[in-house]
Amino acid sequence: MDLRVPGPTPLPPPVREALAAEMINHRGAEFRALLAAVTAGLQHVLQTEGDVLVLTGSGTGAMEAAIVNLISPGDRVLAVTVGAFGDRFAEVAQAFGAEVSTVASPWGRAANALALEDALARTPHVRLVLVTHNETSTGVTNDLRALAEVVGARRGEGGPLLVVDAVSSAGAIPLPVDAWGCDVAITGSQKAWMAPPGVSMLSMSERAWAAAERATCPRYYWDLRKACRAAERHETPWTPAVNALQGLHAALAMMRAEGLEAIYARHRRVAHRMREGAKALGLELFADPAHASNTVTTLRVPEGVDGEMLLRRVRELGVTLAGGQGALKGRIIRVGHMGYVDTADIDRVLQALAAALG
Amino acid sequence: MDLRVPGPTPLPPPVREALAAEMINHRGAEFRALLAAVTAGLQHVLQTEGDVLVLTGSGTGAMEAAIVNLISPGDRVLAVTVGAFGDRFAEVAQAFGAEVSTVASPWGRAANALALEDALARTPHVRLVLVTHNETSTGVTNDLRALAEVVGARRGEGGPLLVVDAVSSAGAIPLPVDAWGCDVAITGSQKAWMAPPGVSMLSMSERAWAAAERATCPRYYWDLRKACRAAERHETPWTPAVNALQGLHAALAMMRAEGLEAIYARHRRVAHRMREGAKALGLELFADPAHASNTVTTLRVPEGVDGEMLLRRVRELGVTLAGGQGALKGRIIRVGHMGYVDTADIDRVLQALAAALG
Repeated sequence: MDLRVPGPTPLPPPVREALAAEMINHRGAEFRALLAAVTAGLQHVLQTEGDVLVLTGSGTGAMEAAIVNLISPGDRVLAVTVGAFGDRFAEVAQAFGAEVSTVASPWGRAANALALEDALARTPHVRLVLVTHNETSTGVTNDLRALAEVVGARRGEGGPLLVVDAVSSAGAIPLPVDAWGCDVAITGSQKAWMAPPGVSMLSMSERAWAAAERATCPRYYWDLRKACRAAERHETPWTPAVNALQGLHAALAMMRAEGLEAIYARHRRVAHRMREGAKALGLELFADPAHASNTVTTLRVPEGVDGEMLLRRVRELGVTLAGGQGALKGRIIRVGHMGYVDTADIDRVLQALAAALG
Repeated sequence: MDLRVPGPTPLPPPVREALAAEMINHRGAEFRALLAAVTAGLQHVLQTEGDVLVLTGSGTGAMEAAIVNLISPGDRVLAVTVGAFGDRFAEVAQAFGAEVSTVASPWGRAANALALEDALARTPHVRLVLVTHNETSTGVTNDLRALAEVVGARRGEGGPLLVVDAVSSAGAIPLPVDAWGCDVAITGSQKAWMAPPGVSMLSMSERAWAAAERATCPRYYWDLRKACRAAERHETPWTPAVNALQGLHAALAMMRAEGLEAIYARHRRVAHRMREGAKALGLELFADPAHASNTVTTLRVPEGVDGEMLLRRVRELGVTLAGGQGALKGRIIRVGHMGYVDTADIDRVLQALAAALG
């Protein structure tokens, strides 16, 4: 079965082999070497010299970790949202007592840097700006660099921190965390990282650490100060997902061997093939073509076609795709192409779609 | 290398094979069947007809989930603690605003049911009683049945809920959740369950669900109401640790084949061999022999022996053991014998200890 949902993604053979390794002591030298290597690999891909922490939990858990470590109840948060995951990030902040304002774009469209600038100008004392780099629900990649510049212009004493949901972008789409001034970037093992789900990763800038010292949200499991102290000796405060990290380690070795530029180019090539192939089948892109994602392609279900039935037929042909979320259920199909994927995989997706539609 | 720390525990070959399986869609029929089977297997071993939820996170994460779902800030919590993990559970409750009183025993001793009864009589409006079933830091198994009876006697309108840290007991030591009246029992994949770390499991009684509706602690990732709604369709609210669950599924099949009584008998046999063998080597048990755990044996480091050096020598002989935590660092060694273990494994531990000491 070809797994082409927007995560979890297929596991390369070396990763699967690593997952079946003997269990090791999470308080021993072998684990410490593993975590040190994984952390260095993540810093390399995220292009950051800041701390990168490895958490046991899904990407949503890391979103919660970011919120509870950076705010106090009543703090103002500006959430830039262009889909389900942007909305989720806003919800997490709300759940922990933030005063959340949103800067929303219609689903399928990218975020507007001018709208963010306006909102920041209108809203005093914004502590955090939450941005989704790649919106998995709509297949849109925001222009993070432009959004980051807007936030960066308000840096300095009391200026907002930029917190980026990079769950489905990092490792596939350029994200130079330090160069773009991302204070926190969040990602997940099961996306471009070619590892199984269960581990989320999060970078922290110096300014983010300063905020973590001031924040008063209650926290324990997600207390990043504890994670940081443990990371200094290459450990985690709680028992980590050892075998998922062994898998991630193998995947990071593959990524280093391929090289960042080659990885980005492959994702561009794969996404291009997917979009062009879909158009050739008469399918319409859901996402604004100017901001169509290189990790997830969203396609409108043609008039008169039952979206659920289409997914089922494609699955019978050996390819698993995803449907739409929320209001898009039944209206779009989503093709994941991040991590362990190349154009031949896309050709099989296109063949299955052609057969199912034809 | 023989991994004989008190978790993570060694993985049986069928579990390792399952961990290397192809990744599957976490929103598809195959995953739903997997989660349904895992849940049924957990209910069988925990002897409960209540809900059992599978969370992505370590045991400490599930402790936090229990707390944030069951209390409101200011609620009174009574923590029965006999070691590091009992203290941790109290800390988690404190972190989320509970008024925590502790009923502590000296490390190495078991909890005292009469002391709990006194504390409950003295303390009005206790919402939760936190009990560690098996204290991994000291190798002590509390008499949970007796403690549960004390709590049970105060059931009824407004009586406390019994929340059990069964991380290192469940699946190895009898724990009939419903019969003993445990409102919440928490355990972790990497202990007696023979699976890799990354997944924690938690049972919820009807009374616990009622408390979850009333509780006002902020929560999002750990919101068990969300987990419950997703579980109704055999899904999880956030991306689950798919391959860890595939491993757990294989392990549960092994446990069902062996049978609960046989599993308990094996753990009794293994622990007996460990304790008797250690005594024969002249080593002294740290835990009160009347309450010595069948999953973790704690041994005093003999006078004049360097505890760290002893662990290092044993490791050079192919066996990984654990040291003491907190104040016990360097003073005790801990031998884990839960999950995938039989007497032959213990004989290798004893041989290594004999050689290292001799």
